[in-house]
Amino acid sequence: MRASPEFELIAKIRERLARAGAGSGADAPERIRLGAGDDAAITVPGGATATTIDATVEGIHFRSGWCPPHSVGRKAMATALSDLAAMGAEPGEAYVWLGRPPWLDPEGVLELCDGLAAVAAAAGVAIAGGDLTAAPELAVSVTAVGHAPAEADFVRRSGAEPGDALCVTGALGGAAAGLMLLEHPDLGGEEISAEADVAACQRQLDPRPRIEAGRLLAGAGAKAMIDVSDGLGADAEHLAEASGVAIEIELERVPLATGVAEIAAAAGRDVYEFAAGGEDYELLVALPRAGLERAAAILEPVGVPLAEIGRITAGRGVRLRLPGGRSLPMTGYDQLRS
Amino acid sequence: MRASPEFELIAKIRERLARAGAGSGADAPERIRLGAGDDAAITVPGGATATTIDATVEGIHFRSGWCPPHSVGRKAMATALSDLAAMGAEPGEAYVWLGRPPWLDPEGVLELCDGLAAVAAAAGVAIAGGDLTAAPELAVSVTAVGHAPAEADFVRRSGAEPGDALCVTGALGGAAAGLMLLEHPDLGGEEISAEADVAACQRQLDPRPRIEAGRLLAGAGAKAMIDVSDGLGADAEHLAEASGVAIEIELERVPLATGVAEIAAAAGRDVYEFAAGGEDYELLVALPRAGLERAAAILEPVGVPLAEIGRITAGRGVRLRLPGGRSLPMTGYDQLRS
Repeated sequence: MRASPEFELIAKIRERLARAGAGSGADAPERIRLGAGDDAAITVPGGATATTIDATVEGIHFRSGWCPPHSVGRKAMATALSDLAAMGAEPGEAYVWLGRPPWLDPEGVLELCDGLAAVAAAAGVAIAGGDLTAAPELAVSVTAVGHAPAEADFVRRSGAEPGDALCVTGALGGAAAGLMLLEHPDLGGEEISAEADVAACQRQLDPRPRIEAGRLLAGAGAKAMIDVSDGLGADAEHLAEASGVAIEIELERVPLATGVAEIAAAAGRDVYEFAAGGEDYELLVALPRAGLERAAAILEPVGVPLAEIGRITAGRGVRLRLPGGRSLPMTGYDQLRS
Repeated sequence: MRASPEFELIAKIRERLARAGAGSGADAPERIRLGAGDDAAITVPGGATATTIDATVEGIHFRSGWCPPHSVGRKAMATALSDLAAMGAEPGEAYVWLGRPPWLDPEGVLELCDGLAAVAAAAGVAIAGGDLTAAPELAVSVTAVGHAPAEADFVRRSGAEPGDALCVTGALGGAAAGLMLLEHPDLGGEEISAEADVAACQRQLDPRPRIEAGRLLAGAGAKAMIDVSDGLGADAEHLAEASGVAIEIELERVPLATGVAEIAAAAGRDVYEFAAGGEDYELLVALPRAGLERAAAILEPVGVPLAEIGRITAGRGVRLRLPGGRSLPMTGYDQLRS
């Protein structure tokens, strides 16, 4: 079967991407020799590259009812670039597949592309290639390519050692709290302040990849790094497994995002459910204890706080310690809830 | 929203890909320094890279009723690698997103991955990264990265000049004829031989990217190249537009794939509808007239025929000339039918 190609819409998309600075026009980086429009894009990467693929799907990662096309585009690009942030990479190019459902009109497609382009342009990323097809539901997959002078400049998940400190950038829980509000619009009412509402929904709808922080942490001696997407427990477990270590996290040391305490109270939930809920796209990083102060100082000029929330030990598995001395082995949100 | 991660299934997928030789284990090419399992894969590309993204979606590119998971995987990988073939690239790495619908059980997921892996391994491609999420319908997107010593080694769509010959590899029409049979299982019956049936369905379900031919044609002086996916008319138009030339194709010189004549007769269709129907994943190539014999000789040892089917002229647009002197401007299948 052959999908009916929408050549006119594709031409408009290219024009919009180029206008947003996320195209591959004259001011695209020297690395890109041929952008969208041929069978493949041509680049001359230089050193080492980090490549990741990520998808954002209606009904799974968002609902159109509360996530307009522009936000879908922003989130799809941000979650892919977050993986590059976790490598400490300099983001370079993105390649996008857009599966367009019958209900999404051309204007909606262009709005989605504007969202993709805005996040890409802010990160200095060129959208160097793409594919538009019909699809039963809205879905976007983004392949992002990042760069570094040499392979060793990237931070993997596998370098953590017993004795290292475990830190997190920014604050957690906002995305899960925002999801709670978006999925339960009747929740709270006057109990939840406008500030809490806006902050949490923005964390869910418009995550910001920690690209600059990732590169600075790589330079500051990060030994292992991962972005918090699946959930604090699950992502810590990925890092622990890859490094062959155990991780202990003191949940009360985890900084909570704006609005989380308020929304948790209104929803009758524990703040730590939200803190461990995932999708905050902050960076979880293992650092040598002796390098902690320096790393925090390096992040200060870009306005990204770094909090020590736990430690790497010998062994296997992740323990999320709750206040009051309780502790439970867990793999994420779902287990914390049970 | 956070998709529920299926860590166990992902581990099994990695094992299967590695076993098929499409993983990133010990025998993966030197270029890949870190495969699937971290936030991103790490490669050290060397020269120039060509990157393409392609998607294969239930109800748009196939129907599960006639396309088992293994075939979905094969076709998804083949169509992405075909873009690299059209660049004359050496295929290197692939990154795959798999959107898994509720009806596809873990065994089906693994069968699909076996299909991806078989085509990747045959082309010397490592599946260096992936993403598995839930999705309302089955969808696969594949980003493929190919390599060449230098940027100029890739063949673009834009180099054709008036006076060049237009050639096609292999034979056309099989994929469209196969689609006709798969969509109309009652068609023909005894009128269509088993040989025609099998050959045509295989062209639709299991396209073979012309990777080796693409590289040989690049070395033989191909000036512009594209793969035949959208349809002969539409793809010729892409090439004509990119090169700023006109193209004339004599449809009666287009080699027809096995079974096309028989199936067209049974279906009461014109063979040229099928020949222009797309999805054959042959290569359409502009060559200097003086280099035609040499190019054909270079392809002979790999068993790929090269047929001269038209010519590049000054002007704009594509003319598909029909036998009997008729000629019509067109952009593909749909217009030929009208």
